[in-house]
Amino acid sequence: MDIEKLIEEIKKKKSFLCVGLDVDLEKIPPHLKELEDPIFEFNKAIIEATHSYAVAYKPNTAFYEAYGIQGWKSLERTIRYLNTNYPEIFTIADAKRGDIGNTSTRYAKAFLEAMNFDSITVAPYMGKDSVEPFLAFENKHTILLALTSNQGANDFQLQETQQNQLFEQVIATSQKWKNAERLMYVVGATKAAHFKKIRAIAPHHFLLVPGVGAQGGSLKEVCRFGLTEDIGLLINSSRGIIYASKEKDFAEKAALKAQELQQEMAIYLN
Amino acid sequence: MDIEKLIEEIKKKKSFLCVGLDVDLEKIPPHLKELEDPIFEFNKAIIEATHSYAVAYKPNTAFYEAYGIQGWKSLERTIRYLNTNYPEIFTIADAKRGDIGNTSTRYAKAFLEAMNFDSITVAPYMGKDSVEPFLAFENKHTILLALTSNQGANDFQLQETQQNQLFEQVIATSQKWKNAERLMYVVGATKAAHFKKIRAIAPHHFLLVPGVGAQGGSLKEVCRFGLTEDIGLLINSSRGIIYASKEKDFAEKAALKAQELQQEMAIYLN
Repeated sequence: MDIEKLIEEIKKKKSFLCVGLDVDLEKIPPHLKELEDPIFEFNKAIIEATHSYAVAYKPNTAFYEAYGIQGWKSLERTIRYLNTNYPEIFTIADAKRGDIGNTSTRYAKAFLEAMNFDSITVAPYMGKDSVEPFLAFENKHTILLALTSNQGANDFQLQETQQNQLFEQVIATSQKWKNAERLMYVVGATKAAHFKKIRAIAPHHFLLVPGVGAQGGSLKEVCRFGLTEDIGLLINSSRGIIYASKEKDFAEKAALKAQELQQEMAIYLN
Repeated sequence: MDIEKLIEEIKKKKSFLCVGLDVDLEKIPPHLKELEDPIFEFNKAIIEATHSYAVAYKPNTAFYEAYGIQGWKSLERTIRYLNTNYPEIFTIADAKRGDIGNTSTRYAKAFLEAMNFDSITVAPYMGKDSVEPFLAFENKHTILLALTSNQGANDFQLQETQQNQLFEQVIATSQKWKNAERLMYVVGATKAAHFKKIRAIAPHHFLLVPGVGAQGGSLKEVCRFGLTEDIGLLINSSRGIIYASKEKDFAEKAALKAQELQQEMAIYLN
């Protein structure tokens, strides 16, 4: 998807909400478990209930791989459902892949070509030649881990290098790579204080922001320092939306939670 | 697998060779493509031909994911074949995963429990809580990317932090994590000059070393600085062995290449 289309969709829906489809069979309503493909049925119901409030969906591949081949089938059905019914919605394979050149190309083809996701999350540790193969795909986007929302971000990402902190170096260095205009960055909402710094290095790139809600990040703070003229933010919520209820009304309750976030976003967009 | 068993096997076979099962359908002999599961048949033939010279096999997941569900089936059949027929052989899921805590647990379960690999490669960028879930599995091993063999290693891994280079910090910091005795590290053979430094920080941990052969690393140099009393090295070769011939004699030629490496290793073990 062209980035302009994503921006258009955000303006139309007054929302920059991404819904994380991290489906755990232990947490979905019992009545779904009797169906042939409970994960897909759950996703379908969530998508139907929330698509007016969301501009992006993000399945995390770990949740699908955990169920082996059946899980991969559910993932493939989910992305196909989105691409068929809601081609205007931005899709993210939250896969956090990354390997040497030729091998990264294989991952890129699997997610951006065969499954036709609009984007994929990628880990930066292996550097330029591990990321550029993802960037080679036209109208596709590579979302590089920069500053994540977890405790472990302190271990390396926030370490001082000789010039700055490692995450800043990741953002600055990656902007010199080929097709860098197709980059976005993962920046945790729990790190709101760093958004100003990040916008100084990456004034226009979209940031995918997990950690609002359950993990304690503030949407208001993120918007204050993160919003750009072209919005430049995708705020992800997973558990807060998809597990708002574990009963038969799960989709209805998910819609309410998504709408709540959308309404708050509409305020910041004005 | 207990690390003692791996060491025993190395001593018995006089080999610390790992064979990378990175199967590309474009590169396998044409006669295999007519079979129902060409990737598995290729792997099976390679394993049968090389298992006397190798102590470990390492499928890189990218090569399987690239073929969607069929690829995952081939991967599952390959690991099942190894576990059934050669339980004494160490298996590595070269998956380079890593995510926040709960999500890493899902990846760990998929590879270490459901597929029953002995180990998995993991990216360190997200820090402690992204790696410890893998380390929680008894008799399993987590192989952390430290210093990779590709050009992109210069971008971040070799950057100077305030104390040392990032890869040294990754090795030093990770040794403080829970169950750190289950850690191994990926260190590219192309970085032989760094092995001395690494052995100063991690004197006993096993190192998984790609980059001998095709990528230009020297087995002799790696052994000179990397070998420990308990060996402490697994040297990986993928293309150099599995694509030694692209004709009907591929398995035979693969065996010759593996044997060549094993014989060189036997010298350094003395």
